[in-house]
Amino acid sequence: MSSASPPMTLVIPPTRSVVRPTTWIEAPRLERRLGLRVVLASETFQHTGSFKFRAAYNVASQVPERHIITASSGNFGQALAHACSRLHKSCAVVMPHTSAAVKVAAVREYGGIVDLVDVTRKSRAERVAELAAERPDAYVASAYDDPLVIAGNATLGEEVAARAGAFEVVVAPVGGGGLTAGLVTGIAASGQGSRLHVVGAEPLLGNDAARSLRAGAIVRNEREPATIADGARTVSLGHHNWQVLSRGLREIVEVPEEAIREAVRLLFGLANLKVEPTGALAVAALLAAPERFAGQSVCCVLSGGNVDPAVYREILAEA
Amino acid sequence: MSSASPPMTLVIPPTRSVVRPTTWIEAPRLERRLGLRVVLASETFQHTGSFKFRAAYNVASQVPERHIITASSGNFGQALAHACSRLHKSCAVVMPHTSAAVKVAAVREYGGIVDLVDVTRKSRAERVAELAAERPDAYVASAYDDPLVIAGNATLGEEVAARAGAFEVVVAPVGGGGLTAGLVTGIAASGQGSRLHVVGAEPLLGNDAARSLRAGAIVRNEREPATIADGARTVSLGHHNWQVLSRGLREIVEVPEEAIREAVRLLFGLANLKVEPTGALAVAALLAAPERFAGQSVCCVLSGGNVDPAVYREILAEA
Repeated sequence: MSSASPPMTLVIPPTRSVVRPTTWIEAPRLERRLGLRVVLASETFQHTGSFKFRAAYNVASQVPERHIITASSGNFGQALAHACSRLHKSCAVVMPHTSAAVKVAAVREYGGIVDLVDVTRKSRAERVAELAAERPDAYVASAYDDPLVIAGNATLGEEVAARAGAFEVVVAPVGGGGLTAGLVTGIAASGQGSRLHVVGAEPLLGNDAARSLRAGAIVRNEREPATIADGARTVSLGHHNWQVLSRGLREIVEVPEEAIREAVRLLFGLANLKVEPTGALAVAALLAAPERFAGQSVCCVLSGGNVDPAVYREILAEA
Repeated sequence: MSSASPPMTLVIPPTRSVVRPTTWIEAPRLERRLGLRVVLASETFQHTGSFKFRAAYNVASQVPERHIITASSGNFGQALAHACSRLHKSCAVVMPHTSAAVKVAAVREYGGIVDLVDVTRKSRAERVAELAAERPDAYVASAYDDPLVIAGNATLGEEVAARAGAFEVVVAPVGGGGLTAGLVTGIAASGQGSRLHVVGAEPLLGNDAARSLRAGAIVRNEREPATIADGARTVSLGHHNWQVLSRGLREIVEVPEEAIREAVRLLFGLANLKVEPTGALAVAALLAAPERFAGQSVCCVLSGGNVDPAVYREILAEA
């Protein structure tokens, strides 16, 4: 599956120059509704529609292997497929058979090979191991537990840090912890770590990261949590991320499902933004814990926009 | 209703410095679907969610009157309300009683006085005349037939012209013609008129502008057309706009309703953009007349994003 004639002198541009800058959006009606000064950093227009491209491109461009295997419920898969395609590499993406149809279609459209696995019978990790055994020349990429993932996501931390002064808190979704670890790392590297704090937003239904922070060690969910925020259906934080987050993450807000849905609706109605449920977690955290943010200026990271139309319609209908 | 103590030394900033720059969005999956090189200029994140703020702010800041009356099916009303509020002026917005609920609510939230009129019994123009008689100190603003409207919208033409070379055609919705007249004017003022052509996209159900271009004189619809593109439910082009468009508009693509709906869905699914039906007209024109644009690079202006959730859900459901 590797490209027939890869360019021999391919110069890999640094990830920083390939990613799209985040889209900064002011939304005064949303601010009024939340009663806070809020600015939105939207990754919904990033390549492949989510921040995951930052990490995926960094991984795919830095490892020497020309075939990459990963497990992803969707956004990392799309991002890796697109990154590999740009780099004339190939990739296989193991996805649960219950994945959103639009995410499966998108991985294929970006040139990735989709490998659907019935997760009630075989874990994604087992299937990845099988594929890796078939392709010893491949790199097995983690969507959220790899220093290259943190470094890729740190490009967003640098962009956010460049606006330090406009806000004092950055709120971002926590699933495996790659995004928040990248933010903490990028902000620290920019010398803004003391004036700009990162707060995580995690679904209450899968609050392993919040429990980990309280326990001082990684705590795992017993099973994949059934939150509507499918990008946060991770069982635990990645170990590399934990190294960063245990020291650098100020706190995590645990967000009820209803707040996630309401945040999706508010972003639609008051900011003209189409955001997937995981992407609405930061705004949902402001709804869930208004007292925590009272009087502060907040940057909300909207991590992605790829949502199945049927799911989106159902959320809008609840208004 | 004029502000109790307007600042006496208010310096009016030029409209150019107050509007938000348009949001440029690349969408490779949409390009692949359309088979064309396409870049999107999205006004959905403009102040009040549509390009109308450009015109409204220019009008409100340039006229000396401190109270403004207008008739608007929504976006111009929101834009004028917000512009007046920023300028410490007041405004009344006459709206048909069938207006989308979110648009009525938004005008009120931005500080405008909404005057709902049953258009089956009294025209909006009659109601505006009544209000103007009550307030002889007021300025009566047209949403689309005023040189100040063209000049305001010309700021978008300047932004588009600054990217001339990246595309050769700009496609934008036509209702009263204020947007396309502004684009033609701004592009010409930037010295790019010979290499960058403006093409209109108009609902086939209300194709008065296309018929006007063919006839060489303004042709009127017999009644407000029942298109889903509510921003294009105008009866005829504005006279000031006609002066510009009769010479400067290359052509108009007449767009069937189904193409408008499909364009809304494609922008949702392939570009993560929430766009109102009128805002999808330019992309719909590419669907409706692919042969017209074959081999060209096109800039599509997405004019606004304010759409009732129920209407939006219904459109998504048809996929």
